[in-house]
Amino acid sequence: MTDSNKRWTLAERPQGRPDSDTFELQEDPVPDPGPGEALVRTLYLSVDPYMRGRMSAAESYADPWDVGETLHGAVVGEVVAEHGTTHETGDVVTAELDWAEYATAPGSELHGIDPDAAPISTALGVLGMPGRTAYFGTREVADVDAGDTFVVTGAAGAVGSVAGQIASLTGARVVGFAGSDEKVRFLEEELGFDAGINYETTEDYHTALQEAAPEGVDAYFDNVGGPITDAVFRSLNVDARVAVCGQISQYNAESMPTGPRKLATVIQTRATVQGFLVSDFAPRFGEATTRLGQWVRNGDITYRETVTEGIESAPDAFLGLFDGENIGKQLVKIGEYED
Amino acid sequence: MTDSNKRWTLAERPQGRPDSDTFELQEDPVPDPGPGEALVRTLYLSVDPYMRGRMSAAESYADPWDVGETLHGAVVGEVVAEHGTTHETGDVVTAELDWAEYATAPGSELHGIDPDAAPISTALGVLGMPGRTAYFGTREVADVDAGDTFVVTGAAGAVGSVAGQIASLTGARVVGFAGSDEKVRFLEEELGFDAGINYETTEDYHTALQEAAPEGVDAYFDNVGGPITDAVFRSLNVDARVAVCGQISQYNAESMPTGPRKLATVIQTRATVQGFLVSDFAPRFGEATTRLGQWVRNGDITYRETVTEGIESAPDAFLGLFDGENIGKQLVKIGEYED
Repeated sequence: MTDSNKRWTLAERPQGRPDSDTFELQEDPVPDPGPGEALVRTLYLSVDPYMRGRMSAAESYADPWDVGETLHGAVVGEVVAEHGTTHETGDVVTAELDWAEYATAPGSELHGIDPDAAPISTALGVLGMPGRTAYFGTREVADVDAGDTFVVTGAAGAVGSVAGQIASLTGARVVGFAGSDEKVRFLEEELGFDAGINYETTEDYHTALQEAAPEGVDAYFDNVGGPITDAVFRSLNVDARVAVCGQISQYNAESMPTGPRKLATVIQTRATVQGFLVSDFAPRFGEATTRLGQWVRNGDITYRETVTEGIESAPDAFLGLFDGENIGKQLVKIGEYED
Repeated sequence: MTDSNKRWTLAERPQGRPDSDTFELQEDPVPDPGPGEALVRTLYLSVDPYMRGRMSAAESYADPWDVGETLHGAVVGEVVAEHGTTHETGDVVTAELDWAEYATAPGSELHGIDPDAAPISTALGVLGMPGRTAYFGTREVADVDAGDTFVVTGAAGAVGSVAGQIASLTGARVVGFAGSDEKVRFLEEELGFDAGINYETTEDYHTALQEAAPEGVDAYFDNVGGPITDAVFRSLNVDARVAVCGQISQYNAESMPTGPRKLATVIQTRATVQGFLVSDFAPRFGEATTRLGQWVRNGDITYRETVTEGIESAPDAFLGLFDGENIGKQLVKIGEYED
């Protein structure tokens, strides 16, 4: 255990695409936990596209970060000291904590995880927020059923890869859009998708989708937005459901992006387009985690992680999300776990 | 009774905005009803924005008209001859018939209406398809509730004027967008809307809406689309419902119109955007007609009609819809009714 603690702050609000100037590495002494607090040594930090929204001053569902503020994210860590909490030194926990090597937090905000049940990093991916987002978005919002054709964008990502597999388990035909041939192979060969479309090398999304989804699209799980979504809207069937989870193609836009006006499509199809946040389903998180855990143990759901090493790599891991550098969940490994 | 029958055919498919070249007046002998058919003398013809879609070759929810084909629409007429139907000469009926002075139809396609219950023209407006569209769109799709703020576009039109009044009856604050000061006065003074916004003279829809709907928008009934809808989306509250009924601002576009990409708004608000066709609610038409009839008789719902005279005026009546020339239901009076 070192005496110094590196942490990342928001150096300036990004105009458009964030870059290395967005972040500033600070170094302080490791903090002491106050009464009722624990000191957590970070093992894994999650970087997620929604964090882009918190870097802007505009109001959104997540509060904006202040310039100079330490960035936050979901972490898995180990309790290394505590002061009157229900946790013990050595416990593995997950919480919303600093982008830092160490952080203190009230004991009540730490959730214990069982390191023997599954690899601890999965608490940030398939068994964590991304997995739950996929679970509720696919089943409740997109309301996928056997025989449906289900389309997902960002299909090789942390959420999309799980969403597509859940739809497959339900008996749907599953088509995923992803950004490389390697990702398409991952979808088709490892995850069991019926078809993958490489949006980087496909010029005509509409035609490609007609081939991959010849009976049209009944349920659409959108993480990306933009021209791919325009194409999917053209293929929606009557009574289709669109679950709007993310719009990563739009997050770095410096002015409001424009696109074809698609509401008339919604009339013709009587489609339902619904945005959601996983937090809306908080009372049912236990159900999702239990079910996802079973599927992972059974081998019904496969997951992959892309991991960078060291606290210094966190900005690059985050920025890589916008280049599609990750397959599966993007994590930053910050500390070694020795059980 | 004359021997000649004037009828309108589709002369050519409009490129963009239809005009007088879109229509051709034909004159033939009055047809004889075949076995099982009735001959109906048209009293009122309904012209509706959705008919623009049928003039294009593109597939939509209503089949395209062929060039040279007689145009069709909802009419109220009088049975003047019949050949083995359950209707009698003198019966007043409503049906989907030709844009013509006379038309034959199978007796089974004619629905009798009671000329003593309400003015016969209301079967094409407040007690007909537009009223039912308002009824189901407001109550079932926009799912308006007491205390909500409800916004409707095309508010002075056949559907919007009824939708707003139904929302008022439910206990919502009602804001309508319409295209003239006269229409705004109609909304506020005759229909009891809480506020009307003249979109022709208002430059900043967003600010105007913030003033008219200071607590945001819970339910939005959209007949128009385009920039007004963009502004309403900025004001949607969490869990808002958007009922997409029409997009008249887009129907004459020659290329796909573009606008701001708004799906991210749907995530933040977890709004539900749903398109609908009144035909989806066909099993419940009786309920709607009964309820609307009660409201009209009680004076809870007020209606207005804009009527042009004569079969020759039908194209102008239709074209006027796109200039917002109508207040309330736009009708063409083709024959006199003498009871």
